[in-house]
Amino acid sequence: MLPDADRPEAESPSCQPIRHVLGRVADKWSLLIVFNLAHGPVRFNQLRRIIQGISQRMLTLTLRELERDGLVLRTVTPSVPPRVDYELTELGFSLLEPTRGLVQWALRHQSELEQANRDYDGRQAG
Amino acid sequence: MLPDADRPEAESPSCQPIRHVLGRVADKWSLLIVFNLAHGPVRFNQLRRIIQGISQRMLTLTLRELERDGLVLRTVTPSVPPRVDYELTELGFSLLEPTRGLVQWALRHQSELEQANRDYDGRQAG
Repeated sequence: MLPDADRPEAESPSCQPIRHVLGRVADKWSLLIVFNLAHGPVRFNQLRRIIQGISQRMLTLTLRELERDGLVLRTVTPSVPPRVDYELTELGFSLLEPTRGLVQWALRHQSELEQANRDYDGRQAG
Repeated sequence: MLPDADRPEAESPSCQPIRHVLGRVADKWSLLIVFNLAHGPVRFNQLRRIIQGISQRMLTLTLRELERDGLVLRTVTPSVPPRVDYELTELGFSLLEPTRGLVQWALRHQSELEQANRDYDGRQAG
């Protein structure tokens, strides 16, 4: 039997299509948007306020990619001024559980990562 | 009671430290490396072969960040030529489950994303 590294990789998560999909969803802004749409439709400006630090341009671009990926639905209500809401599609909802897993890991382990960063930088400087 | 968007966000996953941690781990190369170290130490060149499409430079940079974050341990064996192995730390192992969640989601839903991309691009062109 071939060792792991020499086996065909067609079904492995390292192959090209998976890398592409993973490249789309493994992105902090995409995950934070999906996470914050968990409880229903949210307006553009409200999202911008919730996700601190995201620029208007980055929010626009990321929402457009999420819409193109079929994860988010954009609804324009023709009021004055027009109102734009974003909500998760069924596919988007299916991404919520893995998103929560990663967000919760980050919440739980952020101080360990920060400590590791300080230790590493101390060793480099020493 | 204040609406969601107006509540203080200090404990929310949108606040700055979480964004930073999420920015570090929500990255396709980081997740693919963590995923592929699940079964024990792997050498640099073996990782490069498994994770198709990653450049030597990107693999070096991502491994260094993972080491700095305390997720990966680098061991140099002073043989001729020297041998360099990478393995998950305890903190790195704790990231495996959420990583698998996202990788498995990508494997399961890649064709839906591709279809959504085609539909969206068709609507834009039409």
